[in-house]
Amino acid sequence: MNHLPSTARFSGVVPPVATPLRADRSIDHASLERLVDHLITSGVRGLFALGSTGETAYFTDAQRVEIVRTIVSATGGRVPIIAGAIELTAPRIAETARRLTAEGVDAIVTTAPLYTLNSPAEVARHFRAVAGRIDAPLWAYDVPVRVHTKLPLALLLELAADGVVHGVKDSSGDDVGFRRLVAANAEAGRPLQLLTGHEVVVDAMALAGADGVVPGLANVEAEGYVRLWDAAERGDWETARAEQERLNRIFDIVFQPRGLSGDATGVGAFKAAMAARGLIAEAAMADTVESLGADDVASVRDVLSRSGLLPVSVA
Amino acid sequence: MNHLPSTARFSGVVPPVATPLRADRSIDHASLERLVDHLITSGVRGLFALGSTGETAYFTDAQRVEIVRTIVSATGGRVPIIAGAIELTAPRIAETARRLTAEGVDAIVTTAPLYTLNSPAEVARHFRAVAGRIDAPLWAYDVPVRVHTKLPLALLLELAADGVVHGVKDSSGDDVGFRRLVAANAEAGRPLQLLTGHEVVVDAMALAGADGVVPGLANVEAEGYVRLWDAAERGDWETARAEQERLNRIFDIVFQPRGLSGDATGVGAFKAAMAARGLIAEAAMADTVESLGADDVASVRDVLSRSGLLPVSVA
Amino acid sequence: MNHLPSTARFSGVVPPVATPLRADRSIDHASLERLVDHLITSGVRGLFALGSTGETAYFTDAQRVEIVRTIVSATGGRVPIIAGAIELTAPRIAETARRLTAEGVDAIVTTAPLYTLNSPAEVARHFRAVAGRIDAPLWAYDVPVRVHTKLPLALLLELAADGVVHGVKDSSGDDVGFRRLVAANAEAGRPLQLLTGHEVVVDAMALAGADGVVPGLANVEAEGYVRLWDAAERGDWETARAEQERLNRIFDIVFQPRGLSGDATGVGAFKAAMAARGLIAEAAMADTVESLGADDVASVRDVLSRSGLLPVSVA
Amino acid sequence: MNHLPSTARFSGVVPPVATPLRADRSIDHASLERLVDHLITSGVRGLFALGSTGETAYFTDAQRVEIVRTIVSATGGRVPIIAGAIELTAPRIAETARRLTAEGVDAIVTTAPLYTLNSPAEVARHFRAVAGRIDAPLWAYDVPVRVHTKLPLALLLELAADGVVHGVKDSSGDDVGFRRLVAANAEAGRPLQLLTGHEVVVDAMALAGADGVVPGLANVEAEGYVRLWDAAERGDWETARAEQERLNRIFDIVFQPRGLSGDATGVGAFKAAMAARGLIAEAAMADTVESLGADDVASVRDVLSRSGLLPVSVA
Repeated sequence: MNHLPSTARFSGVVPPVATPLRADRSIDHASLERLVDHLITSGVRGLFALGSTGETAYFTDAQRVEIVRTIVSATGGRVPIIAGAIELTAPRIAETARRLTAEGVDAIVTTAPLYTLNSPAEVARHFRAVAGRIDAPLWAYDVPVRVHTKLPLALLLELAADGVVHGVKDSSGDDVGFRRLVAANAEAGRPLQLLTGHEVVVDAMALAGADGVVPGLANVEAEGYVRLWDAAERGDWETARAEQERLNRIFDIVFQPRGLSGDATGVGAFKAAMAARGLIAEAAMADTVESLGADDVASVRDVLSRSGLLPVSVA
Repeated sequence: MNHLPSTARFSGVVPPVATPLRADRSIDHASLERLVDHLITSGVRGLFALGSTGETAYFTDAQRVEIVRTIVSATGGRVPIIAGAIELTAPRIAETARRLTAEGVDAIVTTAPLYTLNSPAEVARHFRAVAGRIDAPLWAYDVPVRVHTKLPLALLLELAADGVVHGVKDSSGDDVGFRRLVAANAEAGRPLQLLTGHEVVVDAMALAGADGVVPGLANVEAEGYVRLWDAAERGDWETARAEQERLNRIFDIVFQPRGLSGDATGVGAFKAAMAARGLIAEAAMADTVESLGADDVASVRDVLSRSGLLPVSVA
Repeated sequence: MNHLPSTARFSGVVPPVATPLRADRSIDHASLERLVDHLITSGVRGLFALGSTGETAYFTDAQRVEIVRTIVSATGGRVPIIAGAIELTAPRIAETARRLTAEGVDAIVTTAPLYTLNSPAEVARHFRAVAGRIDAPLWAYDVPVRVHTKLPLALLLELAADGVVHGVKDSSGDDVGFRRLVAANAEAGRPLQLLTGHEVVVDAMALAGADGVVPGLANVEAEGYVRLWDAAERGDWETARAEQERLNRIFDIVFQPRGLSGDATGVGAFKAAMAARGLIAEAAMADTVESLGADDVASVRDVLSRSGLLPVSVA
Repeated sequence: MNHLPSTARFSGVVPPVATPLRADRSIDHASLERLVDHLITSGVRGLFALGSTGETAYFTDAQRVEIVRTIVSATGGRVPIIAGAIELTAPRIAETARRLTAEGVDAIVTTAPLYTLNSPAEVARHFRAVAGRIDAPLWAYDVPVRVHTKLPLALLLELAADGVVHGVKDSSGDDVGFRRLVAANAEAGRPLQLLTGHEVVVDAMALAGADGVVPGLANVEAEGYVRLWDAAERGDWETARAEQERLNRIFDIVFQPRGLSGDATGVGAFKAAMAARGLIAEAAMADTVESLGADDVASVRDVLSRSGLLPVSVA
């Protein structure tokens, strides 16, 4: 059983907060405040700051602090905040994490080491080293497409049993692995909270036993995810599925951009849609990431229109 | 809409039939007949012959014909049979497929080319070439862990629209990709039947829109999958989930063997369990695959006992 | 020490013989005879039939026999012939290999299993099973880009020590691994002959200790590789390097095609160049492989012209 | 032509300086000074600070500055120093690089972005962004085993033509790609200096056209690499090869550790050997990396003894 205080529990819909930027690539704090408030009033139960959707890898230490400061302030304690400390190794992660907890986030999430060539035993030492140097609950972020290794099931259970790791954000896309993790966690007394990062299969992952979801698309349409999760919680799977299918039609925005990178495409489509809906001021991307062209933006708007999320486009 | 005759429709539980062998690695036709009959009387709606679970890659052309002949004969037309034609390229697949359809199988399933370095356009030509040379409906088998490429969504839809491919057996483990395929197929009028190969998430994949499942574990416990699928079909998701969770505890047999290969472990555990339950005579593996040691077999039996699938072990 | 008869020794330049086809994709035996004779009179010391450059994966069993029959006949015993038996697993490889040795090839080369999920121990069993069922020396073909596993150094040495494998064709592109194999083989008394498949670094690999080379480009320009190897053998490294650099400018033909697959590009460029030089009648590709477009062929001819391998193009 | 000042040219033997640590994992500055002096008096022509061998990923910003400060001071201008700025993205790399150039290093080397999902166009923007924000020549570090993408040839040439990148440290292990880079660079007028990171094939890579080498093993035996490179420069390839083969027998130290990670094994073996030879005080590894056990250390010492690099071991 997970005995963390409620401020450090993350379940239900916990969106990864996008980072609105101005055209000069500086942080648009006004839009960020507005976005945070919109998400919370839409009913999300927590916020994930400085995740991949938040373009955290592209920001300097100072910018990361700036971003978290605004999110904490705009949240005003209404929901708990977990922040990504995405860095190469434990000594560096711990420094980053301490800067973020000093700003008031409630928990930290990090990945296995980047760039290095480590054994599973060293990955365990890594999470233990981070947990031992920070003053907040630690979560593990499993995202092989970026980290290039998957966190083994046995490793997660060992870290959970020892109180090192309190939850997992699973973006591995491996439904079989996730199901096995759910079962093993249940058998161990549920020391871990398990969030899926895959916004297009939330109904299925909820049925499979997920505790919550971290949907990037909630930056565009948060209410739908809240409705979806509520339906799943009360066992109304047909409603959950119908809402998921509606959200998936909106998710088509990420397949509109042509010829761009993964980061430019995914976050780019979210930001274009957020700007189109008036949730943020501009769709600018972090430094060195390409922006969507006008045609791509038009396609994103078309998808939104078809889903009734825009006034009829007058392009 | 799929206008295939009912003998070429595959949905619900369609187990990949294991190939029982004797200690000298010859085919145990008596056990194979018994297995086929057991599966059909357990309520499966079709059979998948010569799949990966059937160890097809390890058999010669003559052995493959032998195996299919027995399966067709034991089936006696009670359910349709789809057979794998697993070979390097279209000219070779077509020859294999014609040998199998001559024995009476109802449909053929094959993968993208093996060993070669092809473009998506060439993979499309490949499926078109096979379909054009055989006299049975063709299915596409998506199994990146073996083929080392994933079949792109657009490719499958193009082949479906042109009547080249009538279904997909998805063993990609990519829940996001599968969900997108379900949605795109629905939008196209359902030209494809979509089977998942992932036996531990059938409830979730059924909720997500799968038409059926190809569970290797059904060789060990077919009735459970039939109950699971029936529950899902009537929208009783809690029962489906409970049955899935029961089956997953049985699936733990594949995590018992230590230090063996993927093929030795997965199929080896199934065969050890089938032999323990008396469904086949021996647990011998195909040529060059290692067999489970006595300890591994004992562990497999323990899992079965805990699930009530064995009389109390008297080891 | 390798005590094989000279007819089963492969060193120096051993080109992988391309398979000339007619426009209807039937085998052009006349061109194949001419090509074989041209290679041998150019000074090559052996022939590699039915390799990747020979498009072997795309041919049926009957076609493979046809091809080898012509190569054997055109060779007339002037140089030894090693033939690829490219198939999924040992039982199937052994059948293919026996068909080829029945036609008179002197040795067989094969890869680790395809499609299957095997352990290193099973890969060793695989090579042992093949060697035990054929009546010719066996070589190992290490080509991870197609087989998706690399043959481990220790495995090759174990198989060599037991007389299972007599040589390695290394197309792994891993210079460090190859150098370690050379050293370990030397320490073991040179049980293996080591051929590199990388035609653009033959000088460097000869300095590193290769016994020979299997250059696809020799189908286009065999004499250069013979000169290069002769220079390396007499320790004239500057001449070897200069010849290599000249050949590499010709190798630029494989970078001319745009947007095609690996197989279409590499073999396609060789065939286009061979046809342009009059070494074969047509540049047709095996079934389901795309052919070079007119622009790509023109670019290939330009590269040849710049290297003085064509009469001035009158396009 | 490369018009950089001689202080920013890196060719010949440029060892990646290991980072000696004390048992408490603090930096052992005395050993580091001694190591730097030893390398320079052995005849190396430059130093590579904060590379993978230097365990840079495991150090904080402050530690990195400490390390570079000592290396710069111990070098005293005798050879140029290039320092690794290993970080996630351009904004963060630029900050790190400025801290290092402020300490007096002569050039900076960095990789493609880590963790992110970028297109080749974005990788180009990345290198341009770094180069535009630092006041020292920039090199590109191609190490796919850590970065999980290979730097494309065309990208390197484009960046070289625009003066963005002045050299490449190639640790891709791709001999074919390296040879093509050498040829393309020569054709472009040699805007890039090309160093290979593969210490076991320096003779072959020198023949192929490398400008120098970054051998981790030089931390253990620098004089050998200097002799090897000098022989290659004067065209004495037989001597170069003999020296390479001698060094490769010493390199066997990295194959002694059993069951450890890549980082623990490689750098661990170097440090164990350096400590055994008295070049540094202790063999401690960076934080969260496992240390070699006593058996592994004994095996490393045995390899050194057999190569005459140790007094007879009195274990």
